[in-house]
Amino acid sequence: MDFNDWYNDIVEEADLCDKRYPIKGMNVWKPYGWKVMKHIDSLIHREMERTDHDELAFPVLIPKTEFAKEAEHIKGFDAEVYWVTHGGTNELDVPMLLRPTSETAMYPMFSLWVRSHTDLPLKTYQIGTTFRYETKMTRAFIRVRQIHFFESHTAHVDYDDAQRQIEEDLEIKERFFNDLSLPCLLAKRPDWDKFAGAFFTIGIDALMPSGRTMQLGSIHHYKDNFAIPYDITYENEDGEHPYVHQTTYGMSERVLGAVVGVHSDDRGIKLPPSIAPYQVVIVPIIKRDGPDVEGYCEKLRDELIDAGLRVKYDGRDLRPGNKYYHWELRGVPLRLEIGPREMEEATVDLAIRDLPKGEGKKKLQVEGLADAIRGELDAYAARLKERAEEALAAGIHEFDRARDAEPEGIVKLGWCTNEACGTAMEEFLDMTMLGVWLDPDGTPREEKQCSECGAAGNAVLFAKTY
Amino acid sequence: MDFNDWYNDIVEEADLCDKRYPIKGMNVWKPYGWKVMKHIDSLIHREMERTDHDELAFPVLIPKTEFAKEAEHIKGFDAEVYWVTHGGTNELDVPMLLRPTSETAMYPMFSLWVRSHTDLPLKTYQIGTTFRYETKMTRAFIRVRQIHFFESHTAHVDYDDAQRQIEEDLEIKERFFNDLSLPCLLAKRPDWDKFAGAFFTIGIDALMPSGRTMQLGSIHHYKDNFAIPYDITYENEDGEHPYVHQTTYGMSERVLGAVVGVHSDDRGIKLPPSIAPYQVVIVPIIKRDGPDVEGYCEKLRDELIDAGLRVKYDGRDLRPGNKYYHWELRGVPLRLEIGPREMEEATVDLAIRDLPKGEGKKKLQVEGLADAIRGELDAYAARLKERAEEALAAGIHEFDRARDAEPEGIVKLGWCTNEACGTAMEEFLDMTMLGVWLDPDGTPREEKQCSECGAAGNAVLFAKTY
Repeated sequence: MDFNDWYNDIVEEADLCDKRYPIKGMNVWKPYGWKVMKHIDSLIHREMERTDHDELAFPVLIPKTEFAKEAEHIKGFDAEVYWVTHGGTNELDVPMLLRPTSETAMYPMFSLWVRSHTDLPLKTYQIGTTFRYETKMTRAFIRVRQIHFFESHTAHVDYDDAQRQIEEDLEIKERFFNDLSLPCLLAKRPDWDKFAGAFFTIGIDALMPSGRTMQLGSIHHYKDNFAIPYDITYENEDGEHPYVHQTTYGMSERVLGAVVGVHSDDRGIKLPPSIAPYQVVIVPIIKRDGPDVEGYCEKLRDELIDAGLRVKYDGRDLRPGNKYYHWELRGVPLRLEIGPREMEEATVDLAIRDLPKGEGKKKLQVEGLADAIRGELDAYAARLKERAEEALAAGIHEFDRARDAEPEGIVKLGWCTNEACGTAMEEFLDMTMLGVWLDPDGTPREEKQCSECGAAGNAVLFAKTY
Repeated sequence: MDFNDWYNDIVEEADLCDKRYPIKGMNVWKPYGWKVMKHIDSLIHREMERTDHDELAFPVLIPKTEFAKEAEHIKGFDAEVYWVTHGGTNELDVPMLLRPTSETAMYPMFSLWVRSHTDLPLKTYQIGTTFRYETKMTRAFIRVRQIHFFESHTAHVDYDDAQRQIEEDLEIKERFFNDLSLPCLLAKRPDWDKFAGAFFTIGIDALMPSGRTMQLGSIHHYKDNFAIPYDITYENEDGEHPYVHQTTYGMSERVLGAVVGVHSDDRGIKLPPSIAPYQVVIVPIIKRDGPDVEGYCEKLRDELIDAGLRVKYDGRDLRPGNKYYHWELRGVPLRLEIGPREMEEATVDLAIRDLPKGEGKKKLQVEGLADAIRGELDAYAARLKERAEEALAAGIHEFDRARDAEPEGIVKLGWCTNEACGTAMEEFLDMTMLGVWLDPDGTPREEKQCSECGAAGNAVLFAKTY
């Protein structure tokens, strides 16, 4: 089946969302999908706490007057925002928009909050809802009109301190995606594709099985581009009032879209243990007139939960095979099957979600089971990551000249930084330039002569994108 | 100072919110306030899990066509909703509104989800953002235009099963408000003041120090009032397709408003330990050339955190007195002061937030400190509750006839259920009828002859309300 069709079906079959809500592109989070998303949020909260970001929550609505202050920003978003024009039957004096991102909501307040160098760095974040009036075809988690969104916003004394924040963001990104077994590409977007108002933008892209890349997040250095129109200054030790330099880091529910797309097979999705609502499902194999397998399984579940694992006991009145199918589809990493024989032997039959049917079964002892399960979960996560890394590496195709390139998957070429050379390559390939390929620390990964003019340059990546 | 003025100041001084956002009635949650609100949410999550409600998340926008299906409901909300009319520069074919509550978003989906009696009861909830176009004066947490809102929605086979849900909701309400040391009144709203579309409504009201009551939440039996227009039916065991009966339970950030208002004194707010971001603050008393008090305090903090307490070490370069003032204002229950002498004696000086300055100090041994602190927190929570219960009891004034009543605080009268008698009392008192006073189990608390006609009736409560 075509990937896109498969994807559209699986998000509903795995019980992540329901797309039948009567506004296209605004989907209902089903309980199972919402649990997964909240586990993803927990990983973000953990990283934000570790790095001393304060969580806050801004209103969803922004007055048009504030939105219009940064000229590039409003140009970038004007066609994509929803407008609130009426309250009850009254027309509002100042129309309000549903935030597509929160710069223009936050920065009037930053201007009030930042007074002195002792208020800096200001490190904040929020996780909430943003909106985009999408005119293209919508797709669950990937292109939606109501978006579950994370954004951190920081302010610093100068450019260099903001640059150090970018470096911290890159470390956060590394740990976060490692927890999801999800390798990503880092690319510094070309100027014509950076975020509206940014000084520079680093994109975080995943490769989907369709061969298209998807931007999962982005990290921006704003310099003082927003500080000037929003008047965010501080008093330094010399009594001067310079503008702050700002950064942001944003990610959306697309992260879940990538997890679904990248970690999957023809039996369904495969959730990383870090975000699986249930890391283990226990299925009882009940024999008529046999021992109390159900009570035994429930006791084992409680012990595993006490040991810190997320465990579901599936006691429904269904055939075991139906339960296997149900939980494989939903990506539960490990399944324990327990019948009278396992009870007697003090073992469990383990089935591992990501391995082919023949290979993914083994016996574990009940003695020391929690530790054995933790070991299996780690090995499972490592395999997911390795497989995704192989797929990513296999998807990158290097060429010396754009006109000789086979435009499929990700195309790697050299680029001199000249816009005309870059757009010429985009046209030849009919692909989007993701930008200069970066190492995890944010430095260019590789030198490579420009495809067009032959001048010295860096390796850049091109792809068709979601 | 007048309570309302005090309240308006304290919410900002205690760092809960910032009201300077450029849309009136839409405030910014500051990190400290957001932490408190998230602890309140955690109490709700715990109760919902305990009672097998599934969390989900619906879109914020509702198409006008769905909203208009239940006639009473749209009449009740029409003047109070924000309308989204444009996407980019396009006028939308169907205007959308920002949800004031989610019945009309959820029930088209309930109609798809509920097929058979085995799908029932359906027990769901969400915590999110709702909106009201308020034309009255706004007040932080109490009357706002963007509302942090909890709502549970359930569907049942029949009226009686829905009624059992109401009883479970009353138990949830009891545990939840007990955790906040916040006594509330339960009152069955008169028909002319029930929720738009409800069969009956039970209001949960707190008494604020101003003498006004505030509705903190409400529990509704919908019967099949929404099931009919939204066509929510199920197949029963006889192959028939009856309508479901529904209930909801809603509460908002007003709960925090009541915590602020009820548990407070002239030194600031007093947070219940269950929702205090920090239950204990440690302030070092540093002597020049003395021992390493700071390292000692940090070690003690880590030990208390490991013991499951929420502890802040305040190592800022400020005088101790300034720190005391800072944390008293913000309602931290307990403060530990530790200097060289306490280090040597292996003691801490404890200051208790709710007791008068002279009485609220004692010495505790470091040995067994975590347990001693837990004991102090329990005693503190019990005192908050007792004080609030006394204030509530003292605020209720009983009379036999409305025309003889002193209309202050809460007025208790008898009522026969006749609307004319009820509205006559409201007019005499210039107060709102909260409804028939209920016991915690939802049954009328007390019989009392009608103030107007002398017929047999029940005790009802009246008040000026927020």
